Amino acid sequence: MNIEMIRAAEQRLRRHARRTPLLSSPFLDEIAGRQVLVKPECLQHTGSFKYRGARAALSALDDETCQRGVIAFSSGNHAQGVALAAREFGTSAVIIMPSDAPELKIENTRALGAEVVLYDRANEDRDAIGAELAATRGLTLIKPFDEPQVIAGQGTVGLEIAEDAAALGVHLASVLVPCGGGGLTSGVALALEAEAPEMRVHPVEPEGFDDVARSLATGEVQRNERTAGSLCDAIITPSPGHITLPIMQRLCGPGLVVSEDDCLRAMALAWQRLKIVVEPGGAAALAAALFQPQTFQGETVIVVATGGNVDMPVFQRALKEDLS
Amino acid sequence: MNIEMIRAAEQRLRRHARRTPLLSSPFLDEIAGRQVLVKPECLQHTGSFKYRGARAALSALDDETCQRGVIAFSSGNHAQGVALAAREFGTSAVIIMPSDAPELKIENTRALGAEVVLYDRANEDRDAIGAELAATRGLTLIKPFDEPQVIAGQGTVGLEIAEDAAALGVHLASVLVPCGGGGLTSGVALALEAEAPEMRVHPVEPEGFDDVARSLATGEVQRNERTAGSLCDAIITPSPGHITLPIMQRLCGPGLVVSEDDCLRAMALAWQRLKIVVEPGGAAALAAALFQPQTFQGETVIVVATGGNVDMPVFQRALKEDLS
Repeated sequence: MNIEMIRAAEQRLRRHARRTPLLSSPFLDEIAGRQVLVKPECLQHTGSFKYRGARAALSALDDETCQRGVIAFSSGNHAQGVALAAREFGTSAVIIMPSDAPELKIENTRALGAEVVLYDRANEDRDAIGAELAATRGLTLIKPFDEPQVIAGQGTVGLEIAEDAAALGVHLASVLVPCGGGGLTSGVALALEAEAPEMRVHPVEPEGFDDVARSLATGEVQRNERTAGSLCDAIITPSPGHITLPIMQRLCGPGLVVSEDDCLRAMALAWQRLKIVVEPGGAAALAAALFQPQTFQGETVIVVATGGNVDMPVFQRALKEDLS
Repeated sequence: MNIEMIRAAEQRLRRHARRTPLLSSPFLDEIAGRQVLVKPECLQHTGSFKYRGARAALSALDDETCQRGVIAFSSGNHAQGVALAAREFGTSAVIIMPSDAPELKIENTRALGAEVVLYDRANEDRDAIGAELAATRGLTLIKPFDEPQVIAGQGTVGLEIAEDAAALGVHLASVLVPCGGGGLTSGVALALEAEAPEMRVHPVEPEGFDDVARSLATGEVQRNERTAGSLCDAIITPSPGHITLPIMQRLCGPGLVVSEDDCLRAMALAWQRLKIVVEPGGAAALAAALFQPQTFQGETVIVVATGGNVDMPVFQRALKEDLS
């Protein structure tokens, strides 16, 4: 896993992944007490950065393997990314999703042409379901984060951050990334190590699901007690990846932890000040930037808003947050 | 008024105006029955394209004139654009706003450092108020649309559309633009005449405020009976401009007319499918693209989503639209 793989992924994604801008608002700067730059990956195809990793992974397969079809596990954003990438390559995708995933994500994944297999998160073993399907149909598993080509695709977010920040004269910054298994966080960190070495990446997780923060703090792999029951469904994973954690240990941290309420407030401010739609997990880094300015260094903070696939009732709940 | 002024404005706006991408969604393509590309100027500084024209106009003033200060009339988006541009040039701005303008727009204009003077749209003469202030303080009026440098600034939207559409292989398209006085519409039309001559621009207005559509249809300047009472406050003007109308007569039309309800539905779909926040007037062109596919030609329609400065109650109303 190295920077050359990220640069190669960038070449393969060119004219496919959308080049998202860096957004800002003087009103957000005032709240955070520093310059806040937001990379809105909610504007990416399928509404999250996951399309990058999915397309990078599929485009790295040989034709024959690709045409046999792919399979993925996902609560929704990786699902949509793999579904769209598979459709673009003219192959089939089976997506195994928890039955409590947001409806919008399940519907969209189906509408993008994938076959969705729902499972009960509490009582069924998704790995067994997936292994069975993969074996009988010859499908290739596209892992959501612990896969070098997926990390390479997500790392292109870091290349774009480095380039666009430099154009604004920003070279020194804290970079906050909503973190599940660490695919995006480790990819961005590798990209910035090469292109903007004065930037420090911090993973951001919701309270109660801070396996990465605890793993970084203790130096040992930590697991979450639960993997359901959070509004931040997009960034809930049992534990950090085997490939992603060593990268994060070398380059990232400390990890930051935010409350669900702060994610909802950040969603409302992103609506009001940036005119973007962000889902709870996607707003975790913005929440840390705005409401925990004491937890990281520097005059500039760069935040990835990772996705915008939120069901209406949750979004309406966010809009009830006090913005005064 | 010519393409060279637009190219010069682009140079002056470089590294100041935000380069907005072209967004799309297969779900919107399906509704419209053709490819839909959306230029999200709601993501521009101050939440609308108006910053472009304001900054272009202020940057064309000589230093002494600029430093005496500027004045503008606006229901809100031009107000915020002028306020921010004035702050960037270290000068003062007086903005005369109708007292029934959206609260968010009034608050933001003040927060950006402008002096806001409210007037009663029904009973007071804003021109007289403005003339008095301009004369006593030596302020320069920055008109919202009937001013060559403002049109030049808005025209940069057209240059970007031409470039980004070409990168997607799109050269032939209908381009729909929400239209008030015609500054953006005429600027985009001039830019596309030079850079993408196979694209045809259609202004889009709300029902009951279709002065431009009627002026284009009859060949004579038509006025609206009312200039208040629309959700689409951003694109309500008494009549087309003296500079903008001849350009639109030469290059644009026919004008399209949409209902407020269709604007609200388009806002909800932009929220769901593009993850952007659009105000009612800013959604007029998207509404026409999605719900009036028979009124314009071609396999591709390009839409400008002009702004996102919407008060919460109106946005909540849009989210109640049926998206099924």
